[in-house]
Amino acid sequence: MTEFLSTAPYRGTRDFLPPEMSIRQQVFSLLYETVERFGFVRYDGPLLEAAEIYEAKSGEEIANQQLYTLTDRGERRLALRPEMTPSAARIVAGHLKELRLPVRWYSHPSCYRYERPQRGRVREHWQLNVDIFGSDRMECEIEIFEVIHAIMCAVGATPDMYVLRANDRVLTDGMLEHIVRVPADCAQAVATVIDRWEKRTPQQRQEEAHAAGLDDRAFEALAEALLAGDALLDELPEDVKQRSRLWPILQCDARELVTFDPLIVRGFEYYTSTVFEVFDRDPLNRRSLFGGGRYDNLVELFSRQQVPGIGFGMGDVTLVDFLQTHDLLPSARSEVDIVVIALDDHLQPVIRRLAAELRDAGHRTSIPLAARRLGKHLAHADDAGARVAVIVGADEHEQGTVVVRDLAAHEQRIVPTDALVDAANEILNQHPVRGTPAR
Amino acid sequence: MTEFLSTAPYRGTRDFLPPEMSIRQQVFSLLYETVERFGFVRYDGPLLEAAEIYEAKSGEEIANQQLYTLTDRGERRLALRPEMTPSAARIVAGHLKELRLPVRWYSHPSCYRYERPQRGRVREHWQLNVDIFGSDRMECEIEIFEVIHAIMCAVGATPDMYVLRANDRVLTDGMLEHIVRVPADCAQAVATVIDRWEKRTPQQRQEEAHAAGLDDRAFEALAEALLAGDALLDELPEDVKQRSRLWPILQCDARELVTFDPLIVRGFEYYTSTVFEVFDRDPLNRRSLFGGGRYDNLVELFSRQQVPGIGFGMGDVTLVDFLQTHDLLPSARSEVDIVVIALDDHLQPVIRRLAAELRDAGHRTSIPLAARRLGKHLAHADDAGARVAVIVGADEHEQGTVVVRDLAAHEQRIVPTDALVDAANEILNQHPVRGTPAR
Repeated sequence: MTEFLSTAPYRGTRDFLPPEMSIRQQVFSLLYETVERFGFVRYDGPLLEAAEIYEAKSGEEIANQQLYTLTDRGERRLALRPEMTPSAARIVAGHLKELRLPVRWYSHPSCYRYERPQRGRVREHWQLNVDIFGSDRMECEIEIFEVIHAIMCAVGATPDMYVLRANDRVLTDGMLEHIVRVPADCAQAVATVIDRWEKRTPQQRQEEAHAAGLDDRAFEALAEALLAGDALLDELPEDVKQRSRLWPILQCDARELVTFDPLIVRGFEYYTSTVFEVFDRDPLNRRSLFGGGRYDNLVELFSRQQVPGIGFGMGDVTLVDFLQTHDLLPSARSEVDIVVIALDDHLQPVIRRLAAELRDAGHRTSIPLAARRLGKHLAHADDAGARVAVIVGADEHEQGTVVVRDLAAHEQRIVPTDALVDAANEILNQHPVRGTPAR
Repeated sequence: MTEFLSTAPYRGTRDFLPPEMSIRQQVFSLLYETVERFGFVRYDGPLLEAAEIYEAKSGEEIANQQLYTLTDRGERRLALRPEMTPSAARIVAGHLKELRLPVRWYSHPSCYRYERPQRGRVREHWQLNVDIFGSDRMECEIEIFEVIHAIMCAVGATPDMYVLRANDRVLTDGMLEHIVRVPADCAQAVATVIDRWEKRTPQQRQEEAHAAGLDDRAFEALAEALLAGDALLDELPEDVKQRSRLWPILQCDARELVTFDPLIVRGFEYYTSTVFEVFDRDPLNRRSLFGGGRYDNLVELFSRQQVPGIGFGMGDVTLVDFLQTHDLLPSARSEVDIVVIALDDHLQPVIRRLAAELRDAGHRTSIPLAARRLGKHLAHADDAGARVAVIVGADEHEQGTVVVRDLAAHEQRIVPTDALVDAANEILNQHPVRGTPAR
């Protein structure tokens, strides 16, 4: 007996059959349209990069535990990109002379991390990257926040469904120095404690704070400060606030775009100022959807020049989960608009010619590739989401006519062959594009 | 002194800056629209697959020399897909119960081969895969040929620029048996000789034919048969022709879609009947652009069931080279339609509101992220391909007006703020979308 290979995709990766792919592409298109409306332009880079560009900057967890690496026959150590920012930094650094900064760039690469698959975490995912490179003005922050709200709106989310929480690393540092009174050399460890805060029990928080070098008094001060919200800002020295990029935003009309939240810190090694994260507001599912921040030393691995940047990365899995939870997923697009059926095999050349005419008129048109009875053909056309069936029999053909059937209305009429395109247009204009039931 | 990392992409891979990406995306969109118009629906699979699915079927060269492999922490031996067909076979085999065959599927994965980079050959490329799975009728062949011509037409190619050459493995086998009179056990080696024929000198052909087991008489017969074109068909026994799929096509109205050519054989391990290849007709550049064929044992690695298939894979590099040679590449799309400029920093909230209105009206609208003089802003807007500039100064704002400038006509007028969208629409409707000069 032959042993067959498994048909399952590699663990943590996904096959996309056409109905799932259609949904994915519709969601992706909404993202692209939205960011392009702000003037962002798309770029792309290779999947394979020198492994060291991740080992230097992406943080210990990604580089040591989650990186897929390989060595090519030229002994070059390569990695499958786990994220896009290092590639973007490399590309920007390599074209500093030609680029007129600032630039608005976006990309949508597949990214690879060796993770234990679980809800929201897979090994292959698509990540929308939206960044402004080359400006440190707070207008960049405001625009990135606007883009996020525009994306959420484009996919159908309303403000009651999510919240954009923002903080600034400068404010966090000020809080640790002036309110919690932590020695500067503990600051990074404490930031890690803050980053995990919402996933921990009160007891765990205290233990981790102690491990990071905080005594009981400092822990109390920290816990209080983290929950203070806007009131924390009143306690921070003026010069700290002035140095941050978020504080002036909180003073202007853009205030309404974000909720200030000292709990947002994100990976400390990466970001230098503004940090932000979008959360699902659903009380049963209060998950982080995506986030980003400002990194003012973006290209330092590749160039002496300083290029500030701000942006975010939005993974497809978390977004699609969110859309599913809130019943916002589009349905799969129909496969075809029109099906042209020959009642006799010798009419194949005829239906090929008619199908070509309908395609030239812009309609997705197919002809059956299997011999079936007419009823089966029509059922199949209906399943594929077709709205029109064109049926050609020997008699009709001799009389220079075809049968045009409105599949939604279950009505049909005979029309002269040269009026076929008009008749099809008429039916297609009456019915909106149909979704197909899930596979 | 700090040592900087290289900004060059990994050898054989490419960075796509926005202008190049825009051209690539425009070409890709034409491909998708064309195949969707025939009723093909898109699917996708993972980059990483079990290495053995390539080792079994993709041919010795790919599996042993060109495959990028890695071993994950679970000791699974994985490969970066060098081509899509084995993934498609796995996915089809895994869903045979739900799929109503035949299906028209397409995909556009990036594929990876460890090759020495040279013109037309890179290590990372995007390959359009277009296949019909589950039917062995010759209508599939005809449709695939039609799709190829439709794609070439969509990218701007005319019939004088390319030729679709086709053959059938059954006809080749018949030719070898009945005309060249080669023992059956040499057939595969001789097919390899045929595959390389056009890349070899007459002397090399003879040497390779001898090595494959042909004597001088058989070599002469082979050389004559390969150049006979349609005349070869007259010499083949009727039963051989009847068993082939190509011969009946050559007898019907679809004849005009292809040029019969016994030189086309393609990789012998893969295809079982029809094989075809598209060539540039340019006498200075008579290269193969892409090709495909019929493989009737597609899913045999994964399932007992027989699933016939036919299709082709079209790489982006060769296609873009062809378009460039024939001056058919589109120019990069403009980055933005409208730029909204504040003459005073305190008007930032005003221009953000106006920009949002223009975006809601469907226009790609940006605001400057750097402080510059108006002249610089306008020059920058022009470079980005914008057709409208909206300029807001303190005086205009007080009077409830804005300046709307037609960047192509170099004309401007003052309009009430609430008439801005209409004024912008008017200018945008007058001018077609502009390309931008290459970076």
